[in-house]
Amino acid sequence: MKKSSVKVAVVGASGYSGEELVRLLLSHPQAELRAVTSRQMTGQTLAQVFPRFGQFAAARQLRFSQPNVELLAKEAEIVFLALPHGVAAEFAAPLLQLGCQVIDLSADFRLRSAMAYKEFYGQDHAAPELLAKSVYGLPELYRSTIKSASLIACPGCYPTSILLPILPLLKANLIKETGMIANSLSAVSGAGKKVEADYLFVECNESVRPYGIPKHRHLSEIEQELTLTAGQPVVIQFSPHLIPINRGILSTLYLAPHKHFATTGEMNALGEQIRSCYDAAYGKEPFVRVLEGKALPDTKNVFGTNMIEIAWRLDQRTGRLVVMSALDNIVKGASGQAVQCFNILCGFEETHGLI
Amino acid sequence: MKKSSVKVAVVGASGYSGEELVRLLLSHPQAELRAVTSRQMTGQTLAQVFPRFGQFAAARQLRFSQPNVELLAKEAEIVFLALPHGVAAEFAAPLLQLGCQVIDLSADFRLRSAMAYKEFYGQDHAAPELLAKSVYGLPELYRSTIKSASLIACPGCYPTSILLPILPLLKANLIKETGMIANSLSAVSGAGKKVEADYLFVECNESVRPYGIPKHRHLSEIEQELTLTAGQPVVIQFSPHLIPINRGILSTLYLAPHKHFATTGEMNALGEQIRSCYDAAYGKEPFVRVLEGKALPDTKNVFGTNMIEIAWRLDQRTGRLVVMSALDNIVKGASGQAVQCFNILCGFEETHGLI
Amino acid sequence: MKKSSVKVAVVGASGYSGEELVRLLLSHPQAELRAVTSRQMTGQTLAQVFPRFGQFAAARQLRFSQPNVELLAKEAEIVFLALPHGVAAEFAAPLLQLGCQVIDLSADFRLRSAMAYKEFYGQDHAAPELLAKSVYGLPELYRSTIKSASLIACPGCYPTSILLPILPLLKANLIKETGMIANSLSAVSGAGKKVEADYLFVECNESVRPYGIPKHRHLSEIEQELTLTAGQPVVIQFSPHLIPINRGILSTLYLAPHKHFATTGEMNALGEQIRSCYDAAYGKEPFVRVLEGKALPDTKNVFGTNMIEIAWRLDQRTGRLVVMSALDNIVKGASGQAVQCFNILCGFEETHGLI
Amino acid sequence: MKKSSVKVAVVGASGYSGEELVRLLLSHPQAELRAVTSRQMTGQTLAQVFPRFGQFAAARQLRFSQPNVELLAKEAEIVFLALPHGVAAEFAAPLLQLGCQVIDLSADFRLRSAMAYKEFYGQDHAAPELLAKSVYGLPELYRSTIKSASLIACPGCYPTSILLPILPLLKANLIKETGMIANSLSAVSGAGKKVEADYLFVECNESVRPYGIPKHRHLSEIEQELTLTAGQPVVIQFSPHLIPINRGILSTLYLAPHKHFATTGEMNALGEQIRSCYDAAYGKEPFVRVLEGKALPDTKNVFGTNMIEIAWRLDQRTGRLVVMSALDNIVKGASGQAVQCFNILCGFEETHGLI
Repeated sequence: MKKSSVKVAVVGASGYSGEELVRLLLSHPQAELRAVTSRQMTGQTLAQVFPRFGQFAAARQLRFSQPNVELLAKEAEIVFLALPHGVAAEFAAPLLQLGCQVIDLSADFRLRSAMAYKEFYGQDHAAPELLAKSVYGLPELYRSTIKSASLIACPGCYPTSILLPILPLLKANLIKETGMIANSLSAVSGAGKKVEADYLFVECNESVRPYGIPKHRHLSEIEQELTLTAGQPVVIQFSPHLIPINRGILSTLYLAPHKHFATTGEMNALGEQIRSCYDAAYGKEPFVRVLEGKALPDTKNVFGTNMIEIAWRLDQRTGRLVVMSALDNIVKGASGQAVQCFNILCGFEETHGLI
Repeated sequence: MKKSSVKVAVVGASGYSGEELVRLLLSHPQAELRAVTSRQMTGQTLAQVFPRFGQFAAARQLRFSQPNVELLAKEAEIVFLALPHGVAAEFAAPLLQLGCQVIDLSADFRLRSAMAYKEFYGQDHAAPELLAKSVYGLPELYRSTIKSASLIACPGCYPTSILLPILPLLKANLIKETGMIANSLSAVSGAGKKVEADYLFVECNESVRPYGIPKHRHLSEIEQELTLTAGQPVVIQFSPHLIPINRGILSTLYLAPHKHFATTGEMNALGEQIRSCYDAAYGKEPFVRVLEGKALPDTKNVFGTNMIEIAWRLDQRTGRLVVMSALDNIVKGASGQAVQCFNILCGFEETHGLI
Repeated sequence: MKKSSVKVAVVGASGYSGEELVRLLLSHPQAELRAVTSRQMTGQTLAQVFPRFGQFAAARQLRFSQPNVELLAKEAEIVFLALPHGVAAEFAAPLLQLGCQVIDLSADFRLRSAMAYKEFYGQDHAAPELLAKSVYGLPELYRSTIKSASLIACPGCYPTSILLPILPLLKANLIKETGMIANSLSAVSGAGKKVEADYLFVECNESVRPYGIPKHRHLSEIEQELTLTAGQPVVIQFSPHLIPINRGILSTLYLAPHKHFATTGEMNALGEQIRSCYDAAYGKEPFVRVLEGKALPDTKNVFGTNMIEIAWRLDQRTGRLVVMSALDNIVKGASGQAVQCFNILCGFEETHGLI
Repeated sequence: MKKSSVKVAVVGASGYSGEELVRLLLSHPQAELRAVTSRQMTGQTLAQVFPRFGQFAAARQLRFSQPNVELLAKEAEIVFLALPHGVAAEFAAPLLQLGCQVIDLSADFRLRSAMAYKEFYGQDHAAPELLAKSVYGLPELYRSTIKSASLIACPGCYPTSILLPILPLLKANLIKETGMIANSLSAVSGAGKKVEADYLFVECNESVRPYGIPKHRHLSEIEQELTLTAGQPVVIQFSPHLIPINRGILSTLYLAPHKHFATTGEMNALGEQIRSCYDAAYGKEPFVRVLEGKALPDTKNVFGTNMIEIAWRLDQRTGRLVVMSALDNIVKGASGQAVQCFNILCGFEETHGLI
């Protein structure tokens, strides 16, 4: 489909991802934001709830409403779900039936297996029949299927920061499928707008801490995608940490190249292969920046953008390949990636509203 | 030796470690701070340079002087060096000759090999004859030799956070010597009081970034100590990162147990061995806290203290042992550990001035 | 009274002030902490609830209990109340009757008038008969009455930062009683450990905001003390703001000297009077530091200490006196000041456990 | 003039304001960025110096050049100067002569009096003849003269935060010209990208401090504009403070209404006048948001935007009017306002590239 403008709605717009999604849609030249829902905020305008949106005329008009599937389907062609997992699935099914396309930011449609969902999310899936239909919304990998999807499951923030650096290497068979480690650091916004003592300013400032070790929920989608790409079961070690910043994820990945590189010559040859691999995969991607020279990723370089930064180093001493990535967990890790999928789905310029 | 009070001096007291060392010595019941030196600050009182020390009478009296070896030896029995590497070695030799004991916070006397020093620090060692004499100031490991040392080389902040969790496991032969990874996160104070653009507030706040990858200087002492303990050459992957906090290091270590633990029973049995190992090593250590239950290390729990927190998890999915540690990089990672060594050296209660 | 050691208890020890109070008491050489209460934490040890206290043997033993007045009176001679206002008053009365001395950190006994209490705190006072008995625990002002008090009401954090700089000037009749303004900036811990969205990390980081304008509760005690000192009713403008730090209050005070100082000579003469005034008032105070030369207060210089920093500037252009102060809101603004009062009450060295 | 696109250059693009200006111009639909200069960065592309601009194709092409007036005049119709004061004046004169229009972000052309310049900036003005020609670039006040200016002096960050709230009240004669106080809090970026110890992360984090009291340079332009509006000399008290955030200024203003408002009725009547006054002044301004109800300004609500938030409170107890404002010091306080002036100058939609 190719249109000048598409009517959209955001369900559950009061969390951090919902807020950023609304911001992106308000300034998107081809999105017409027709409805935003939030049980808590019903009746208030977007500008009242989020003062910083006051500069947008639309935000001074549009009021939060109760989430009502029929009304949403009447107002919008494409509905974004920024809901907790479990809840999203309940909205997706009727919306799809009413003819909407759905872009879901929750974890509900990321997994192909309802069993894996139950293992990692601790509850039965509310709409398992939709899992086969859903497309994993990682544009760099699934661009062509996203184009014709009716249900898009946007990847998690951690998985995006881990999969984009690894997948091309795995596909090119440059690294082993075994022994991978992802050590990740996330901004506090990654926890969502949860009003819990753990996320109070005083508890987070001057605090750095691991959590969810060794089996965080995001492992399920990370391993699913690695497995699909590798063509064989992949298990990865994943260690998330909380750090005192508002936005950003920094992942440091420890990978084992197939080739040994005992000499500098061998290392350089392998380095050339890795460079080519990334260049082939991402040379033309608008939102992937593979760093050159001495530069290393830094979350401040991607703050507020839809970009992921990637750098890599071969370590002759250990024989390992260390890959590092940085992204904004709420933009490329959530809402920006959702808008990128939206652009693809609508046949718009993929960078529209994102640069 | 056993005394009621010992005369001490601090050379190079204007950096972050020097400042904290002075703070600890000012409130130490058995240390008499007789001299502090700093070329830049000469003539000013401690309280003028560090307003927060104004509450100590001694800090309102004691003035910074030019570093002069003879005068230092006259004033102090034990001299702390909080100088940049390279410079420390130049002071240590004459001070030792003049009969002082030296506790050095720099990297100059941590390595046993002058060649390794040159490889990692890029310059010839200024006093290689002292390397054999120096004791690595990790109290939990070298307490008995520290007692009778004349030259103590305090470990680096990263090495302390990595060695304390690993050494007991390695010694007990519970883990393999190969494939170890240390992913470490450091406060900005770890860079010292360097007036460089990279460490400006605006450049660090909302920024998280790796650096010094894959061959940071601290590798040299980490591998030296691992090798000594293992009785065979050990190579480790070490990835430092800078995070926006004032104080703290969080290290996440990926280790390979010798034993496979395919079943939960095997995992529990191995867990029991690890627990016993740590308990034997650290059960009575005043500054090592091995966490139990669901607790994980958090830099805010060790802020301003000489404590290191350690927790570990076995991952049945990957067969790995993940160990995490947190310490205050300027206290247990530098000045607090130096005072702990000082207490041992003087025969004082080891926790004196530190709790 | 003069003792080697005094038995104490802390009621409501799970908030920020309670936690810091416990820390100070654990390391106080003459306090024996016998009981800590918290409904939520009952049964857990201090070290379990506050891991950073793990270094204190006592903290690994002592368990939180339910607040029970009889048991408290049995265990402790002096009971600290770190409870919300309203609740503190309910504990104070029976504790006093059972013979304990009470040091209250809440607002319940700061005001002499039950009517003012109702106006500012919106509820009837639970023990109005005690108001006349209570002593306002500002040691620099009320040291001699604190000595023999049975009920001490520790001042609020803002009031401490405002009263200490103003009172000597007012007493010396150097400034007018009218037109005073206090513009204050507080750390987020000033809000207590309230689990509300406003105090989440993401909502506070990169945020600076006024609140409670123009009639914050602390006005009541500020004006009460100014009025008592001036001998006539004083009204002051007070504007609190929230800033993203863990600890600290910075108050900037705008005052009108009685004297005009049109010439530099007049300004210098007035300056000399102000200097003398502060010197007379605070020259020997262990916890008040009046800055000289170009130095201005900085919260980082008082972080974790019981010190207040004060500096002042005469402005010839406007005819005003600008006085600035910095303190740690949880130490000098709450728990440290409470311990200072405790020391006075017990006849201990006033700086004991605080330097 | 009315064009589809205008060629622009930025001189001195490596500081914080220069960087943000470049960002705004890169995404401005009608600005064509033709040259950026920086002595230090010459030869590097914008994307190399500022990795976060890598997403803009133009930033991957455009290289920093040496500042050369002739080349600048050849490339650009409008030249932005983001230079230190003193240096800017040296560039402005020849650029104007060569037919460029100049938008200066420094302090060089803000003052009408070369004598005041010398008093506050400590040096002779390099091009005093241009002072009469320059227009103070506060769009809300000088929109019509900006339209036809050849030299625009963008206001300082503090002055913008102070003048916008006060000017309408002063013009409407609602407040007295005497006794005004501005207490302002600034992000660390307000100091520029100065590599000095005072602005290191560790020195700023957990630090809040006044500076430049009582006579900061920005007083000169604040008082100039207040004086022009009042039609009589105005003196104001101005106290800047540094707080640990990246972006933002929060100003709290203490003003004296002409009218007494002893009763609530009088207060409400006066409140109505103030509301009307602001509504008349700013009701249609795209970048001024006067808050209603209980809302108070918060720097996080204006982060990264060109908006200023204003709220006010009448205090019946003191008879004062307290006005608070928040803006992003680098956007509305510098580069955003410069682009707003650019839009006016070019006859573009004033919000272009800013919303």
